[in-house]
Amino acid sequence: MRHGEPFDPATMADPAAYQALRHPPGAHHVVALDQRALPHAIVPVRLGDAEAAAVAIRDMWIRGAPLIGAVGAYGLAMALDRDATDGALDRAHAMLDATRPTAVNLRWALDRVHRRVAPLARDERADAAWAEADAIAVEDVAINRAIGEHGLRLIERLGAPGDGPVNVMTHCNAGALATCGWGTATAPVFLAHARGVAVHVWVSETRPRLQGANLTAWEFAQRGIPHTLVVDGACASLMRLREVDVVFVGADRVARNGDVCNKIGTYDKAIAAKENGVPLYVALPSPTFDASLPDGDAIPIEARSPDEVLRVPGRDEREGDVRAGIAPAGTRAHNPAFDVTPARYVTGLVTERGVAAASEAGLSALFPERFA
Amino acid sequence: MRHGEPFDPATMADPAAYQALRHPPGAHHVVALDQRALPHAIVPVRLGDAEAAAVAIRDMWIRGAPLIGAVGAYGLAMALDRDATDGALDRAHAMLDATRPTAVNLRWALDRVHRRVAPLARDERADAAWAEADAIAVEDVAINRAIGEHGLRLIERLGAPGDGPVNVMTHCNAGALATCGWGTATAPVFLAHARGVAVHVWVSETRPRLQGANLTAWEFAQRGIPHTLVVDGACASLMRLREVDVVFVGADRVARNGDVCNKIGTYDKAIAAKENGVPLYVALPSPTFDASLPDGDAIPIEARSPDEVLRVPGRDEREGDVRAGIAPAGTRAHNPAFDVTPARYVTGLVTERGVAAASEAGLSALFPERFA
Repeated sequence: MRHGEPFDPATMADPAAYQALRHPPGAHHVVALDQRALPHAIVPVRLGDAEAAAVAIRDMWIRGAPLIGAVGAYGLAMALDRDATDGALDRAHAMLDATRPTAVNLRWALDRVHRRVAPLARDERADAAWAEADAIAVEDVAINRAIGEHGLRLIERLGAPGDGPVNVMTHCNAGALATCGWGTATAPVFLAHARGVAVHVWVSETRPRLQGANLTAWEFAQRGIPHTLVVDGACASLMRLREVDVVFVGADRVARNGDVCNKIGTYDKAIAAKENGVPLYVALPSPTFDASLPDGDAIPIEARSPDEVLRVPGRDEREGDVRAGIAPAGTRAHNPAFDVTPARYVTGLVTERGVAAASEAGLSALFPERFA
Repeated sequence: MRHGEPFDPATMADPAAYQALRHPPGAHHVVALDQRALPHAIVPVRLGDAEAAAVAIRDMWIRGAPLIGAVGAYGLAMALDRDATDGALDRAHAMLDATRPTAVNLRWALDRVHRRVAPLARDERADAAWAEADAIAVEDVAINRAIGEHGLRLIERLGAPGDGPVNVMTHCNAGALATCGWGTATAPVFLAHARGVAVHVWVSETRPRLQGANLTAWEFAQRGIPHTLVVDGACASLMRLREVDVVFVGADRVARNGDVCNKIGTYDKAIAAKENGVPLYVALPSPTFDASLPDGDAIPIEARSPDEVLRVPGRDEREGDVRAGIAPAGTRAHNPAFDVTPARYVTGLVTERGVAAASEAGLSALFPERFA
């Protein structure tokens, strides 16, 4: 690890208390879980400068649209600790913004901190940036909570007492590990379980990076919530076989018309859900909404390394950490990290203000200020 | 390896000449490629008794509906070499039939050999069984060829000179490694390439067992056909983005109404194809057609070990053969090996007699004797 020193794991000893990101009060660094090590090891890392924050985002030590935004904001604060000139502010903003293109939360958080500190005197900027980053993180927790409550009502409507658990399906990880709090798509499930509504979750493994298997399954295990792992290709068939009552997924960016950009493999689930009459909800924290884009096809889709397709990282019982090469040497692979689901396949957008139709009308009714 | 002795790889030294199954003339054994070793090693195995054939089918040393049928037929011949009584014939038939439930070719081939030899005197049975198994294998090659010709015409219709290659998508492996010849779904692509029609193939990796990455990519590489590997979850999005001109998949069993049972992950591709106006053809050798079943929901779907989902086998650059565990210890997984695609999503069934509509009318027009 070039950036980010290992941090005392004892402070995260209670697994139920894991946090994707912590800013120790007054500290000029943050502590993140290195998600590349999960589920096999819990490795907190200290991120102490903007470069470390950028590497953590770019190389996916941390991921998830809301979490990327928060880490970006803290990274800007760290940059200002060192140099609070206009030039340094702009350079750090550009460097952090360039790490990943698709999730709009990153740009949103960086712009928000920039806007907050640019009018200030130099010696006030760093403190203001740390405070603004803290505010972003605190607001994210509140947003998670509100999405959880609105989503819980959708789950409660599907469950009839005595009928067994409500079968939820999710994709990738839009959990606590993707946010500063409980997660977005998982928050309704966590709340349901906490309040005694029986749930069972189908977790799709989410190739290539396996966030479902590595992260989401781990989160449900930590909380004792019944769940079953399946390959991505099995999800549509489970819907056809009536094994799925509702699908909750996250988002990396939602356009003005309600088109949803999310982890690759979301679109096929959305088609299958519609085809089989299964409601599919997208958890949408408002910072993930990009009112500047008319539709999803304008969203930049990150193409990541073919290596993520060609070699599967995991833990071998004898050899420890390995990368299982699955294709002949020299095989060409294509690795789009996200796809776009047209709004017509989305039953609703679960925001912190309630459930919106996936349309300009639906979004503008809940977020009129974004359409001003 | 408990069953099946290693066989001299020199006889298969030319990779373009690889054969999934060979019956050396006059021999009382067959030689199969152990497909679990591909693409990292070419490991032919000698199968010399019915038990070895059963293990090779059950544990997926060999796989693919037509190939399973042929190996089953040879297995029955091997059983009769040892004991040609009625009891032994029935016991071997039952043992081989129990190895895998979904592909109907196995039962079809076993029944065909049984029917051929049962009326004979004991001392004539073994020779007749070997001859019948050889006939099944030879016919399979001819079927592959005919499917290739019919499918090639579909590809030719899609390609306009100067427009670049026809972009074909396939799933799992319905190639030479699934048959005694060129494969079913891949045969049109092989023929197109051989005749100068430019093709490029999207190969979906096909979790959990990765037959796309391990086998299909290897077959295209052996033949120098341009191809690109993608994760299963990327296929629908590629169709939406107009990167796919046609989808060809195989089948493990097709019901009387045209419903198609094939590798898990076929159904979602079929929905996506229909939704995006991409033709999807199912290569259907007639032994894979089960006229006794009214529809696809009557087809038994094999549930395989959760371990296939939880641990990904591959070749680590340092450690050699590994199994990458991807989920927390104790994670529950569900592993249905196949799914059912309702006939309405299937553009056509490419059989050795031509292209049939996926319906009772379409099938009975081409195979009237099966509806008698």
